[in-house]
Amino acid sequence: MGARAIIAGDGALPGLVAAAGPALIVRLEGMPGGTGGADVVARLERLGTLFADLHRSGVTEVCFAGAMRRVGFDPAALDAETRALLPRLTAAMGQGDDALLRDIVAIFEEQGFTIRGAHELRPDLAAPEGAIAGTPRPEGDAARARAVLAALGPLDVGQAAVAAGGQMLGIETLQGTDAMLRFVAKTAPGSGGVLVKRAKPGQDLRVDMPVIGPDTVTLAASAGLSGIEIEAARVLLLDPEAVLAACAARGVALWAVP
Amino acid sequence: MGARAIIAGDGALPGLVAAAGPALIVRLEGMPGGTGGADVVARLERLGTLFADLHRSGVTEVCFAGAMRRVGFDPAALDAETRALLPRLTAAMGQGDDALLRDIVAIFEEQGFTIRGAHELRPDLAAPEGAIAGTPRPEGDAARARAVLAALGPLDVGQAAVAAGGQMLGIETLQGTDAMLRFVAKTAPGSGGVLVKRAKPGQDLRVDMPVIGPDTVTLAASAGLSGIEIEAARVLLLDPEAVLAACAARGVALWAVP
Repeated sequence: MGARAIIAGDGALPGLVAAAGPALIVRLEGMPGGTGGADVVARLERLGTLFADLHRSGVTEVCFAGAMRRVGFDPAALDAETRALLPRLTAAMGQGDDALLRDIVAIFEEQGFTIRGAHELRPDLAAPEGAIAGTPRPEGDAARARAVLAALGPLDVGQAAVAAGGQMLGIETLQGTDAMLRFVAKTAPGSGGVLVKRAKPGQDLRVDMPVIGPDTVTLAASAGLSGIEIEAARVLLLDPEAVLAACAARGVALWAVP
Repeated sequence: MGARAIIAGDGALPGLVAAAGPALIVRLEGMPGGTGGADVVARLERLGTLFADLHRSGVTEVCFAGAMRRVGFDPAALDAETRALLPRLTAAMGQGDDALLRDIVAIFEEQGFTIRGAHELRPDLAAPEGAIAGTPRPEGDAARARAVLAALGPLDVGQAAVAAGGQMLGIETLQGTDAMLRFVAKTAPGSGGVLVKRAKPGQDLRVDMPVIGPDTVTLAASAGLSGIEIEAARVLLLDPEAVLAACAARGVALWAVP
């Protein structure tokens, strides 16, 4: 079996995946999270150089982990391989970040790398069905938020939503779950509502895994929410112990449903 | 023909509807907008008293205009009629604000009043199809936001949404359009995106008419948006001249589509 490389984005996930076994840590210049601790610092403009480095190191499997962000291209810095890919990348960019990420993954696969999801390397971080902390809240608000996410899923929108008293207080957009929770905290505090977080139906879990961490619990509590419902097996807990501790400290229930 | 009463909520709409012809202005204690300038100050706990007042004044048609907000009930202040209605109002409350509003309207109809919508009394404020200010933006972002609203409509969620570059930046929840625009301004400034505002498919326009005003244009501009698309004939312009002036001053395009 060949070596593993982790294309590391922001947050705790790259470190958690690195703990699953030896891996070359690759960081991309300009991405959130910086380039500290990387074995290889790459540039999106020089994918040809990156592929050659990885092949030379015997890498056969690649895991994308952590939050990525679209970065600008410097046309002057392009290597020949990336220049050849440019029309394709530009077309994908026009269709949004998900399309761009899917295309970058496809390019890695065409180079012979196997893509491994963070949830495959750390299955212990995925929540099984049932109560995780506290007592699940009555079904109404969670069902309402789930219905909204189900309606938006085919449009590739919405990983999370907040409902309280039968009303929607937040629907996640590009800015992410934390930004939505801050919005709810500011505009509808003390609702006692529920946050629901799920993978989108078409979401490629190998490269874009929904996560919650202790910060999510803290933000939900600050927004006056009483519970968090996640999708069993398809949402990762970053640092499960810290998540449980935050739930206990802030009185937030956490449970997983199919 | 009998007299007209306006049940006035917050904002400019009650004044605009009052300008359409003589009317008794009713304000409810505790509602946003206060009770200033009212001919009748009523309480939700004393609907029986309000109905008697209206009948005595010869009122046969009622127009609900302006933003309403759910207020608490003081059980000690209930009159006999309202006490009899309480089980029904409580049941409607459990299904959310729209259900409560629909039920209150039904109660007025059962009392013999005809409900007139703000758009019926001021049809001049509804935008016809076409460009209203500036040049409509390319279709992509408006179509994306429209698709999101269409998906959410059956769930009675979402009068407005913001898209930019193919991505969703805001989806309206209970807190309203202005709160969503402030969220976009803070979390995704300078996007050049488009705000789309439409009535929900099941929305009762007689009592809950979507509106935009000069403040909407200013907030959209502050959020870095380049255009606003509204639904022709089903979204009212509060003060069309001021809206046009704000569009011109801030370089925001405005157009209406079916």
